[in-house]
Amino acid sequence: MKQYISEDAWSIIETDFHRDYNEITESLMSLGNGRFGQRGNFEEQFTGKTMLGNYVAGVYYPDKTRVGWWKNGYPEYFAKVLNAANWIGIDVEIDTETLDLNTCEVREFRRELNMREGYLERSFVATLPSKKEVRVNAKRFCSLADDDAGAIRYSITPLNFDAPITVTPAIDGTIRNRDANYDETFWNEGRKETGYGEAYLELRTRKTDYHVLTGMCVEIEQDGATVDFQSQPVKREKYVASRITLDCRTGQETIIYKYAVVLSSLNVAIDDLMQVAHKTIRRVSQKGFAQLLDEQKQAWADKWQMNDIIIKGDVAAQQGIRFNIFQLNQTYTGEDERLNIGPKGFTGEKYGGSTYWDTEAYCLPFYLATANQNVARNLLIYRYKQLGKAIENGEKLGFTGGAALYPMVTMTGEECHNEWEITFEEIHRNGAIAYAIYDYVRYTSDDAYLSEYGLEVLIAISRFWMQRVNWSAQKAQYVMLGVTGPNEYENNVNNNWYTNYIAAWTLHYTLEAIEIVRQTAPDQYADLTQRIGFGEADETKQAQHIIDNMHYPFDAGRQVFLQQSDFLDKALMPASDIPAAQRPINQRWSWDRILRSCFIKQADVLQGLYFFEDEFDLETLRRNFDFYEPMTVHESSLSPCVHSIQASKLGMADKAYEMYLRTARLDLDDYNNDTEDGLHITSMAGTWLAVVKGFGGMRVSKDGTLSFAPYCPAGWSSLSFKIRFRGALLQITVTQQDVTVQNFSEQPVSLTVLGQPVTVDTNGSVTTAVSVRDVVDA
Amino acid sequence: MKQYISEDAWSIIETDFHRDYNEITESLMSLGNGRFGQRGNFEEQFTGKTMLGNYVAGVYYPDKTRVGWWKNGYPEYFAKVLNAANWIGIDVEIDTETLDLNTCEVREFRRELNMREGYLERSFVATLPSKKEVRVNAKRFCSLADDDAGAIRYSITPLNFDAPITVTPAIDGTIRNRDANYDETFWNEGRKETGYGEAYLELRTRKTDYHVLTGMCVEIEQDGATVDFQSQPVKREKYVASRITLDCRTGQETIIYKYAVVLSSLNVAIDDLMQVAHKTIRRVSQKGFAQLLDEQKQAWADKWQMNDIIIKGDVAAQQGIRFNIFQLNQTYTGEDERLNIGPKGFTGEKYGGSTYWDTEAYCLPFYLATANQNVARNLLIYRYKQLGKAIENGEKLGFTGGAALYPMVTMTGEECHNEWEITFEEIHRNGAIAYAIYDYVRYTSDDAYLSEYGLEVLIAISRFWMQRVNWSAQKAQYVMLGVTGPNEYENNVNNNWYTNYIAAWTLHYTLEAIEIVRQTAPDQYADLTQRIGFGEADETKQAQHIIDNMHYPFDAGRQVFLQQSDFLDKALMPASDIPAAQRPINQRWSWDRILRSCFIKQADVLQGLYFFEDEFDLETLRRNFDFYEPMTVHESSLSPCVHSIQASKLGMADKAYEMYLRTARLDLDDYNNDTEDGLHITSMAGTWLAVVKGFGGMRVSKDGTLSFAPYCPAGWSSLSFKIRFRGALLQITVTQQDVTVQNFSEQPVSLTVLGQPVTVDTNGSVTTAVSVRDVVDA
Repeated sequence: MKQYISEDAWSIIETDFHRDYNEITESLMSLGNGRFGQRGNFEEQFTGKTMLGNYVAGVYYPDKTRVGWWKNGYPEYFAKVLNAANWIGIDVEIDTETLDLNTCEVREFRRELNMREGYLERSFVATLPSKKEVRVNAKRFCSLADDDAGAIRYSITPLNFDAPITVTPAIDGTIRNRDANYDETFWNEGRKETGYGEAYLELRTRKTDYHVLTGMCVEIEQDGATVDFQSQPVKREKYVASRITLDCRTGQETIIYKYAVVLSSLNVAIDDLMQVAHKTIRRVSQKGFAQLLDEQKQAWADKWQMNDIIIKGDVAAQQGIRFNIFQLNQTYTGEDERLNIGPKGFTGEKYGGSTYWDTEAYCLPFYLATANQNVARNLLIYRYKQLGKAIENGEKLGFTGGAALYPMVTMTGEECHNEWEITFEEIHRNGAIAYAIYDYVRYTSDDAYLSEYGLEVLIAISRFWMQRVNWSAQKAQYVMLGVTGPNEYENNVNNNWYTNYIAAWTLHYTLEAIEIVRQTAPDQYADLTQRIGFGEADETKQAQHIIDNMHYPFDAGRQVFLQQSDFLDKALMPASDIPAAQRPINQRWSWDRILRSCFIKQADVLQGLYFFEDEFDLETLRRNFDFYEPMTVHESSLSPCVHSIQASKLGMADKAYEMYLRTARLDLDDYNNDTEDGLHITSMAGTWLAVVKGFGGMRVSKDGTLSFAPYCPAGWSSLSFKIRFRGALLQITVTQQDVTVQNFSEQPVSLTVLGQPVTVDTNGSVTTAVSVRDVVDA
Repeated sequence: MKQYISEDAWSIIETDFHRDYNEITESLMSLGNGRFGQRGNFEEQFTGKTMLGNYVAGVYYPDKTRVGWWKNGYPEYFAKVLNAANWIGIDVEIDTETLDLNTCEVREFRRELNMREGYLERSFVATLPSKKEVRVNAKRFCSLADDDAGAIRYSITPLNFDAPITVTPAIDGTIRNRDANYDETFWNEGRKETGYGEAYLELRTRKTDYHVLTGMCVEIEQDGATVDFQSQPVKREKYVASRITLDCRTGQETIIYKYAVVLSSLNVAIDDLMQVAHKTIRRVSQKGFAQLLDEQKQAWADKWQMNDIIIKGDVAAQQGIRFNIFQLNQTYTGEDERLNIGPKGFTGEKYGGSTYWDTEAYCLPFYLATANQNVARNLLIYRYKQLGKAIENGEKLGFTGGAALYPMVTMTGEECHNEWEITFEEIHRNGAIAYAIYDYVRYTSDDAYLSEYGLEVLIAISRFWMQRVNWSAQKAQYVMLGVTGPNEYENNVNNNWYTNYIAAWTLHYTLEAIEIVRQTAPDQYADLTQRIGFGEADETKQAQHIIDNMHYPFDAGRQVFLQQSDFLDKALMPASDIPAAQRPINQRWSWDRILRSCFIKQADVLQGLYFFEDEFDLETLRRNFDFYEPMTVHESSLSPCVHSIQASKLGMADKAYEMYLRTARLDLDDYNNDTEDGLHITSMAGTWLAVVKGFGGMRVSKDGTLSFAPYCPAGWSSLSFKIRFRGALLQITVTQQDVTVQNFSEQPVSLTVLGQPVTVDTNGSVTTAVSVRDVVDA
C-alpha cells in the first residue's frame, strides 16, 4: 500500500517526482478515449523506471500458446494486447545535452491527471548536468470528442541560459511488449511518410494483419506567436520524426504543439488510411490546441453530468469514486459493438484479450444505470454474436448438441487463454452470461430481447450445464466435478457452491424464459426451437430433474454453504493471522501453499448470495459473511466491492466503508502491489456498485420495482448519484438525515425509498427522512 | 496399435519400407552407448517423414519457462534435452541426382536392429528417377567398448550404370529441437576444422555452455581395397563435411567407412577437446570397422550374459523383453554417477530433464538385480548429492527446517518442470525416493548406507511430509490436500490414498532407520542429528502422531481403498465402454473431460499395494484390483507392468500375460500411438519387473530372504532369467513342470522356491516341481 498521491476531489496529483513509483503513476495517469489510450509516460526521453504503453482498441496479436505441456482443448493462441506506436514522444536536446529527468536535478515537479476536464498536465524545473535550468510544462489528452485524435502542448523555458534547443517529436513503433516471451516484435512496418513538421507511420500486426496508422504534425509558438521552423525529417525502421532546432533565450517560452492521429483498419479501409490520416491531421491542427481542449472539457462535462457521484465530507472517497468513473469512461464508450471492456483498458499489457466475465458480472449494471440502454444491449449482443464460437468451443471440449461454453478470455469469440484450471474449469463465466440477460431484462423490462436473442443463448448455456453435471450414485444427486469457482485460489474442486448454484439457476431461468417467449412471441419461439433442434419435452424435463437434485455442499453445524466439497478439511484461520510481510500472498506464497490454504482470493459464496439475494434471508447472508469474510484476502480486484455491498446490506457500515475504500482506491493506493502493471478497469464498475447498490441500496425487484435503501457512511455529509431507469433520469442524494430523489425526466416515477412507496413528479423531488435504520457493525 | 515389425528373437526387423511409420521405426531402432545416442535415421538425405535426433548424455538447455501465467515457486527453467550435431549423415549424389528414398522406387528394403550384437543395418535397392539402380547396405553402431566413438559402414553398388558418385559425409549442427517454442536454436558454433576426409565441429550450448565436439574421418574401399580419394572440405555455419567424388561402375561395391567421435566438456577439459578428438579418431580409425564391431559384439555378449531373459515358445514375448533390456542397457550403464535414466534415453526430445521418480520406482530394482551393487548405490547417491537442492526447493515452496521436496524432473537437482499440478503436487515422488532406500537396503543388506547417506535423506523427506499434511478438524485426522498421485489423470485432489500411504510409510521407515543407525553407528547418528538440528523427541513424536492418525479414503461398501476423496462421486464405468476410436483418451478427449472421468492413467492404489504388499492380504489386493483394473487405461507406460505383477500374484495368468505384452511391446506395437516421439525407456525396467517379480514371483522379504513363486505363462515352454543377489549370481528357469535355480557363484545360496526352503550349492542347481499353483483367471 502506498499513499503518495495527493487527495483532491477532481484530480490525481503527484507533487514530487517519485522515481521508484513512476510505473505506478504512469498507470494511474493513463489517458484514453475508448478507441486508443496510453500510459502517463513522459514526452521527453526518460532513462529511469518507465513502461511505455500505447494501446489501440480491438487490435491484438494471437500469440503462440504451444508452450510447456499441451492439453487437448487448448486454444490456438493466447491473445496479446499490443503495445502500439508511441505518439507522445518529444525528445529534447538543450545545446548538446539530452533532457532526461533521470539525469537531472528536478524541482517543482507536479503531475496532474485532471479528471473533470480529461487531460494530463506535468510541470517541473530541471537542472541539467551542465547546470542549465529549464522549466517545462506539458499538457496532453486523447480527444473524446474527436476520437481519432490526441494533442500535446509542450512548453520549454530556459531559466539561466541562451542556447539552441532541438526538439524531435516522433512516432516510435519500435516499442516491444514487455510480456513478449522472447522479446519478439508483433508488428511489421508498413508505409512511412515525413514532411514539414509532419510524420506518418503505419504498422501492421503479424498474423492478424491489423493496420494501425499513427501520424503527427507539429506547430511551434514563441513569444506568443506561431513561428516558422526548419525541420529535418528522420526515418528509421518503425520510426519517423521531425528534428527541429530553435534558438531560445533565458525566460523565453517555446511551445511545441503536437497533434496526433491514430487510425486502425478496424475503422478505416486499409487503402484509405494514409489519406484519412492526412485529412484528420489537417482538421485537428486547424482547430488548434485550445479549441480541442475546449471540446474535451465539454465532452467530459457531458459525461460527468450523467455519471458523477458526489461525496461530501470525504475527499479520499470522492477522489476514489471519480477516478473509477473516469477510467471506465476512458476505456469503453459503448459506441462500437465490436469492442468490450478490457480488464486493463489502455493502461497496461497484462491480461491478454478484451472480454472476461467481468463485463457481465460487474460492468453491465454500471452501463445499464449510467448510459443509454443500447450500450448494455450491445454488450449482450456482443456475446450473442459469438454464440456460434461458444458452441464450437464446447464441441472442442467434448460437449455436443449445441452446448455453448463461452470463452474465459476472448477478442473475437474464440478462447484465447490457456491454463486448464481456468480455460476448461472456470465455467461459472457461462452462468454470468446467462445472469446478465436476466439482469438486463429485469432492469429494462425489455422482454423482446429474450425472443430476439436471449433465449437462444440461454438454451445453449443450459445444454452445457446439463452435460457438465453428472449423477453421483453415492450422493444420489447431481454433482459438478473439476471446476474452478470465482475464487481462483482453489482449482479443480468438486461442487463449487457458486457454480452449482448458478448452473441450476440458469436452467431455471431458461425454463422461465421459454414460457415468456412461447407466450409473447410464439412464432419466434417456433422458429428458434426448429432451428436449434430444441427437444422441449426431454430437455426441459432433464433440466427440471437437475434443478431438483443438484448437490449443494453445506455445513450443517455452522449452517453455511460450503465453497466446495471438502472445504472443511482445510486448516481454517482468519486472514488476519497472515503476517503483513506475507501479503499479498499471491506474491509471497508458492502456488501450492495458496491452494491448500483456506484463503479466498475473491468473493465466491458471497458472490452467489449477491446475485441471488432474493433466494436467501438476511441471517443466511450474515452467517456466510461471518464465515467467509475473515478468510478472504481480496487479492482479486473484483472482491471488495461485493463484500462492501453485502456489508452494507447487513448494516456493517464500518466494514462496508473499509471495503469501499479498498475497491475505490485499490489502484490509487496500490493495495495489491500491482498497479504498475496497469489499472483494474473492470473492477472499477464494482466500485460504482459498492456505492449505488451498497450505500445507495438500489435494487430492481423481479417485478420491476426500483428501490433504494440508502445510508450515508459516517463521516460523509452527503452522497449523491444519478441513475437512468427505463427512460427516467433520477438523482439520489443521501445525507445523515434524509434521502432525496430528484426526477429529471418527462414522466413521474414511482419507486420505493427505505421501504416506503414514493412517486416523484417530473422535475420534482421527494425527501424521505432516515428515521430508523440499523447501522451497526459486527 | 501397429504390427509391422517382424517377430524375431534377437532383432527388430522392418522388411518393407513403411514410409508413414518411419518416425516410429526411427525410435525403435535407436542406438546408444550410455554416453550418446541417436535415432534410427538414414545416413543419406531423406526428404520424407523423419525426425533427426542425436543426443549427448547430461547436456541440456535451461529453456525459458516464463510463459503464460507464472506461479510462485516455478523453477527458473524447463530443461530441454538437446538435439545435438548429427554425425551419421552421408549425402549421396549419383551422377547429378541425390539419393533420397522419398523420391526413389525402393525394393528389397530391410532395416534391422541387431540387439544381440548391438548394431543397426539397412539395405535396399533404389531406382532413381533417371532409372539408375543402386544397392545400398549401411551398418552402424555406437561403441559400447569405446564409448566416445561410433562407426558406419556404408556400401553403394551401381546395378545398371557406370557413373561418378559423390558422397558427402558430414557433421551437421544445424539441427533444431522440434520442441523449440520459436524454432530457436540452442547451440552456438565453436571451433571447426576440416581436412583430408576429416571434419570436426564444436557446438556450445547457450546459457549452460556445454561444449560438444563431434568429429569424423572417412575411409573408402573399392574392389576390396582401401582407395585414395580427393576430398573437398565444406564449411558452413554449424556444418562441416568432406565432399568426395568416386568413379563407380556397374556391380562395383564402394564402401565408405565413417568413424565418429562425440566428446563433451562433461568429460574432457574444454581446451583439450579438439586434441582428444583427433587422438580418438586416430585410435578408432586405426582399429577399423571390423575390429570395432568385434569389440561391440563382445561388449554386448557380456551384457547379455548378465541380463538376458530367455523365453522359449513365444517369439513376440521373447523379442519384447530383449528389446526392453537392450534399450535399458543402451541408455544407462551406471558408470557415471552424474548421469541418470532419462525417460526417452537417446531416442527423442520429449520430457525434458533426465531424472524422474521412474528411476527409483521402476529402474532401481532392475539395476539392483542385474548389475554391480554400486550401480544401484550410485543411483541413490545421485539423490543424496542433490539433497541440498531438494531442501532449497522445499524452501521455495514455503517449507522450513530442512524439509526436502525432490524435484519432479531434474538435471542437476533443481526442479526443471513447470506445471503446478505436477511440479508442486505430484509429491509422491518424494516417497519413492525414500522407498528406494528401503528397497536397496532390503535387497543388499547394506545397512551402512543408512548411516552414511540414507537417514539424512529420510529425515529431510519426513520433515516435508510432516509439514505437508494438515489436521482436519472435521475428520479428526491428518489429511493431505491438493496433490496429484501417480495417476496424472487426476490433479489437485485431496487425500490421494497412495500419497497419504507412502507419506505415513516414510515416517514409519524413518523411525525404524533412526533406530538402526542409532544402534549400529551411534557416532554418525550423533553427528547427523547435530548437523541437521534434528529434535528427536519432538520430531519422532509428531511423526508417530501422523502415522497413527492419517486419513485413508475407503469405501466401506466395496471394501476398497479410494484413490482419493470423493472418487465415488464420479460416474464409474469400465474403460471397455470407451469406443476404440476415442483411445487413447489423452489424444482424443479434452483435458477437463479426462479429469472428470473415472479413467486411470496408471496404477495408483495398485502401485501402493505393490510397494507395500506385505501390509495387505491377497483378498484386499483382489478387491482393489477388480475395482480399479477395469477403469485403468494404461496411458502411462509405467502402468501395465504393475498390473501384470499384481495379476500374476492374484493368479490371473491371462491378464498378467496381456499386461506383460502391453508393457514389453508397448513401443514395438505403438500401443499408445506415441512411439514416434521416442521410446519409453524407464518403463522398460517395468517390463523386466513384470517378468521377474510377476512371472518369476521374486521377492526379498524384510528379513532378507530371497524367494521365488514362479510360473510359466501358458504357451511358453520355458522362462529363464538371471539375477544377482548379495554376491551370488543365480539363474532361474521355469517350465510348465518345474523350477530350476542354478547357482553360478562361489557360495551356496539359501532361498525359498514356491514356498519351500532350498539351498543351492556353488555351481549347482536345484529343481522344484510345480505341483500346486492356482493359475486361474478372473
